[in-house]
Amino acid sequence: MSSTLGIAVIGAGKMGSDHVRRIGRTVGGARVVAVADPDGDRAKEVAAGLEGAGAHTDPAAAIAAPGVEAVLIASPGAAHEEAVLHALARELPVLCEKPLTPDPAGALRVMEAELRLGRRLVQVGFMRRFDAEYERLKELLDAGGIGRPLFLHCRHRNASSPAFFTSDMLISDSVVHEVDAARWLLGQEVTAVTVLSPTATAAAPEGVRDPRFVLLETSGGVIVDVEIFVNCGFGYQVQCEAVGEAGTARIGDGHAMVVQSAGRWGGEIDQDFTVRFADAYDRQLRRWVAAAARGRIAGPDVWDGYAAAAVSRAGLTAAHSGTRTAVDLVERPALYH
Amino acid sequence: MSSTLGIAVIGAGKMGSDHVRRIGRTVGGARVVAVADPDGDRAKEVAAGLEGAGAHTDPAAAIAAPGVEAVLIASPGAAHEEAVLHALARELPVLCEKPLTPDPAGALRVMEAELRLGRRLVQVGFMRRFDAEYERLKELLDAGGIGRPLFLHCRHRNASSPAFFTSDMLISDSVVHEVDAARWLLGQEVTAVTVLSPTATAAAPEGVRDPRFVLLETSGGVIVDVEIFVNCGFGYQVQCEAVGEAGTARIGDGHAMVVQSAGRWGGEIDQDFTVRFADAYDRQLRRWVAAAARGRIAGPDVWDGYAAAAVSRAGLTAAHSGTRTAVDLVERPALYH
Amino acid sequence: MSSTLGIAVIGAGKMGSDHVRRIGRTVGGARVVAVADPDGDRAKEVAAGLEGAGAHTDPAAAIAAPGVEAVLIASPGAAHEEAVLHALARELPVLCEKPLTPDPAGALRVMEAELRLGRRLVQVGFMRRFDAEYERLKELLDAGGIGRPLFLHCRHRNASSPAFFTSDMLISDSVVHEVDAARWLLGQEVTAVTVLSPTATAAAPEGVRDPRFVLLETSGGVIVDVEIFVNCGFGYQVQCEAVGEAGTARIGDGHAMVVQSAGRWGGEIDQDFTVRFADAYDRQLRRWVAAAARGRIAGPDVWDGYAAAAVSRAGLTAAHSGTRTAVDLVERPALYH
Amino acid sequence: MSSTLGIAVIGAGKMGSDHVRRIGRTVGGARVVAVADPDGDRAKEVAAGLEGAGAHTDPAAAIAAPGVEAVLIASPGAAHEEAVLHALARELPVLCEKPLTPDPAGALRVMEAELRLGRRLVQVGFMRRFDAEYERLKELLDAGGIGRPLFLHCRHRNASSPAFFTSDMLISDSVVHEVDAARWLLGQEVTAVTVLSPTATAAAPEGVRDPRFVLLETSGGVIVDVEIFVNCGFGYQVQCEAVGEAGTARIGDGHAMVVQSAGRWGGEIDQDFTVRFADAYDRQLRRWVAAAARGRIAGPDVWDGYAAAAVSRAGLTAAHSGTRTAVDLVERPALYH
Repeated sequence: MSSTLGIAVIGAGKMGSDHVRRIGRTVGGARVVAVADPDGDRAKEVAAGLEGAGAHTDPAAAIAAPGVEAVLIASPGAAHEEAVLHALARELPVLCEKPLTPDPAGALRVMEAELRLGRRLVQVGFMRRFDAEYERLKELLDAGGIGRPLFLHCRHRNASSPAFFTSDMLISDSVVHEVDAARWLLGQEVTAVTVLSPTATAAAPEGVRDPRFVLLETSGGVIVDVEIFVNCGFGYQVQCEAVGEAGTARIGDGHAMVVQSAGRWGGEIDQDFTVRFADAYDRQLRRWVAAAARGRIAGPDVWDGYAAAAVSRAGLTAAHSGTRTAVDLVERPALYH
Repeated sequence: MSSTLGIAVIGAGKMGSDHVRRIGRTVGGARVVAVADPDGDRAKEVAAGLEGAGAHTDPAAAIAAPGVEAVLIASPGAAHEEAVLHALARELPVLCEKPLTPDPAGALRVMEAELRLGRRLVQVGFMRRFDAEYERLKELLDAGGIGRPLFLHCRHRNASSPAFFTSDMLISDSVVHEVDAARWLLGQEVTAVTVLSPTATAAAPEGVRDPRFVLLETSGGVIVDVEIFVNCGFGYQVQCEAVGEAGTARIGDGHAMVVQSAGRWGGEIDQDFTVRFADAYDRQLRRWVAAAARGRIAGPDVWDGYAAAAVSRAGLTAAHSGTRTAVDLVERPALYH
Repeated sequence: MSSTLGIAVIGAGKMGSDHVRRIGRTVGGARVVAVADPDGDRAKEVAAGLEGAGAHTDPAAAIAAPGVEAVLIASPGAAHEEAVLHALARELPVLCEKPLTPDPAGALRVMEAELRLGRRLVQVGFMRRFDAEYERLKELLDAGGIGRPLFLHCRHRNASSPAFFTSDMLISDSVVHEVDAARWLLGQEVTAVTVLSPTATAAAPEGVRDPRFVLLETSGGVIVDVEIFVNCGFGYQVQCEAVGEAGTARIGDGHAMVVQSAGRWGGEIDQDFTVRFADAYDRQLRRWVAAAARGRIAGPDVWDGYAAAAVSRAGLTAAHSGTRTAVDLVERPALYH
Repeated sequence: MSSTLGIAVIGAGKMGSDHVRRIGRTVGGARVVAVADPDGDRAKEVAAGLEGAGAHTDPAAAIAAPGVEAVLIASPGAAHEEAVLHALARELPVLCEKPLTPDPAGALRVMEAELRLGRRLVQVGFMRRFDAEYERLKELLDAGGIGRPLFLHCRHRNASSPAFFTSDMLISDSVVHEVDAARWLLGQEVTAVTVLSPTATAAAPEGVRDPRFVLLETSGGVIVDVEIFVNCGFGYQVQCEAVGEAGTARIGDGHAMVVQSAGRWGGEIDQDFTVRFADAYDRQLRRWVAAAARGRIAGPDVWDGYAAAAVSRAGLTAAHSGTRTAVDLVERPALYH
């Protein structure tokens, strides 16, 4: 391995600079050659620590910079579509943070661009697929270890939500991870969504419906229930229990070290997804770099990004209307079979 | 303690003869003096093992037998109302297996009889209230240990269901336990029920919708979800996770002994409720005997039996209609406050 | 059951009055008819709550009181021998709190008295044998579930020790429970003892060697290691991991309810043996009452009490000398086979 | 990062080829440029898959090959000393699989060579220090989370041992990992060793004393007990419970995914150290590559290798003699403070 993959990082906020750090420290075979952020100072600051990396305010310019062989998009969701299309125009492999686009229509436009190229270049950053526990659960399900699945019981909890987090974002930003995980674990599409909301927790910001209970129905007759609770106070937690015809399997307890002290047994709960999923982010990036170097992807594709956006959209409708809402998907192109 | 409480046991089937055994072996201060069963031979067989106990085919005769000071009813649900009314006519303390009556109307007639007496003599056999783990969870909730409750996530699984078990009975015979447990744990009434059904398990008898997912909404804005799965194959399991504003608490894992062998760690799952709740049944009976000796009850009362019947009825409507169904309760009489 | 067993309780301290409470509340078929304590006021106080029970300062008088059909001894260990011999002189069934006697010689004298009677009337209060988890472990071992045993890894921890607790008592009063449990679980005698002591914990009273590490070797080549730690600070805990040729089994985690709150998952640790072993004490007493009513015992016998005293004695020698010390036992009389 | 570290791998057996695979797949910034093995065909086979890597039978030749900037030694222990000295002669950073040398004398010769250079270039492959659970335990201990340590209770189990495994190797090859882990976790030296052996398991090869129980005493008064069991049959397992003045902490349960099926709850036990410690091996190599590129080490040093060899030697004496054996260490040179 005498050369390394040149990467343009679009978005130099928390996620973007985390990825830059990862490329430098734990992912071999790659280097950041361009950083773009609308805040030019921030782009410069991040690029300053990198030998030979240029700073940009325009994503298109970063993507077109010399030495760029792949694009990592970590800007806000609304900016994803344009950046992905620029990368596709140059036939560059892309790793795009979720959501691929905030709405199904944008995802369909990306899909059309990729279909014109005739090959899959865009990977969506649903990093749970790279988590060791999720991988074990997936293997178990695929091997029929608990028989045909009937339920997924999911818990998704954050210690607290940022100030800008709305009732809708519990679904579009948080539950969207369970949507992808459920689709991937089951190999089925989501066909309908129902949303229930208990009395909001006292810790929820004024007007925010937190927690919520989201029910997904799938093409294979599985029921997926998700407790989403973004101001639970006690930590970050992602749990999933699959119930099949022949047994159940649960991941996410996080009970690796058991401490006894002061009258209690137990352990610490991770406080942040960057801790809980640190290994998953590393693994996602390493595998993507290795695949991108060969012009391929190694994870969820544009169809997955589109389906997540469509379910997310139906979820918002279900939440607003209080009723069960069907999910409509376009026909799946052969490229994504 | 020089004398013992004389008990008439109505119903000499599995539950009835279990109670007879308990009174003899693990519950002090009581003796069975009359046994009734429509099958006279069975009544005689059970009574034969008891010194000085008479066998009857007519519940009323058993209840009127000399020495009867309290009545334990373990006959089929449809026969409960008549036996309870006979006992109340004689002002005898009653322990009635659940359901108090199969329908809310019957429970209301029992309630009227008790209201005429002006005191509570009837206890309903929701034995989970006497389980050590449920008691710990109740204490924690009452003490505010996890703050105001928002969710109860419940799992109720049987290895297999008897041949006569119908889709309706998943709700009226099984989930009714969660209905009582939720009402008791939360101190709230259930106000609405929704029922979803995934594809039935291959192990379900022809035409039986198993498993199901039952959603209860409560007067305090809590959402209670119940996975009821009566042909899960792997054992008997009752789990409950309470989620509050300040934390969660889970019971029912049953992980007391951890074995490692042949490439696996873990343990056995109880195969039957008589094993899982053996201590709860003992404790229920001991406390009832002690209370009955003083003309009192020590557990769920007729109001609890009525409310469970009303929620159960709404649950069946919800299951048949596929829609959210409200629960209507009469006003709660002062006797039950 | 029209009559109840009349019991004389010798010793009205914490253990004695606990047993009195148990007989009244949770154990049927028995009543206390005499209470003895050197502190006459204490004896009167305890007896006062019991209908028809006399108070005594002399154990012999209590044992000889009218209506006494069985004797429960909960006085200090040094007083056990005399009380047991009085009871045996009257051929009364005995439940004697551990230790049977503080030294092997005393236990041998009790054994001789029982041998003269030709039947076993004395049960020793090693209540762990009645604990549900220990019973499951015993069943597993007896069934060969983990193959032939090779190790028992034991932890025995108290939050803190009473002021009178000495370095020796860690062995003679605490580890003696593991001695009995190991003998019972394995069906083997202990043949040698070694004691190691790490630096004492800062919480240990001046001059008390706490914690200690006690190694028992058995007649079947098993090694039993015991961490005894009586000022561990965090609670009361008794754990045992059996390691066999085909697997391991661990009890005592006490993880029945899992709570998540304030950044931590876990649960409470019992603070006292009366909590941890409440059910075991109840069950021990219920089974002893039932057996005593038929002139029998239902638990560890005088041989078990003697063997425990002999191992305890060897343990003290080992602790004082710092070397491995063999255990010498007399030949086991046929009565105890 | 435009250039990568050139590595000579000494030893192309299981461990050596595993490391080659790791350098290629999961560790960036490095490439293998020379492979040495006494079996020339094996060296060629491993080198064949690597662009520009030469195959050698002589370790010295491989170490002297063009482009070699660091040396990874994975040959049998007896060959380590010579290879390390060759590398030191060229002032190359070294990662040497454990043991550094089989005997303390060899380790002292390596130490002298390094002392002459005046800087630490040799890292010993005790990979547990890079395991996430061990790291958490170390952090907890260092932070005083459970107070001053008093005990480490360790379990080290293999499903089965290779044919060449002797009674001595349970100590020198297996327990040596606990020796290093204990020294590192506690920051203390081991001062004495005692070895007990229960009856051997039926699965042990003829003449092999398996399992054994090894007791280490440390300079800080901590007692470390190790159950080493290399034919336990059920899997690979490394557990450690630290007991301190204010609590305990346990790692190694490996209970990430809980499965319920066929009457049992639980999960799979890893069958091999390459599975259990896969991440630790990756992390060890990544950190070493990063450090070696700057001429440094990032893990256990020659002093650690020497101390482990000295304790291992004392352990063998203790096992053969059946008595407690003191560990003698030379004075620790300033370079290793």
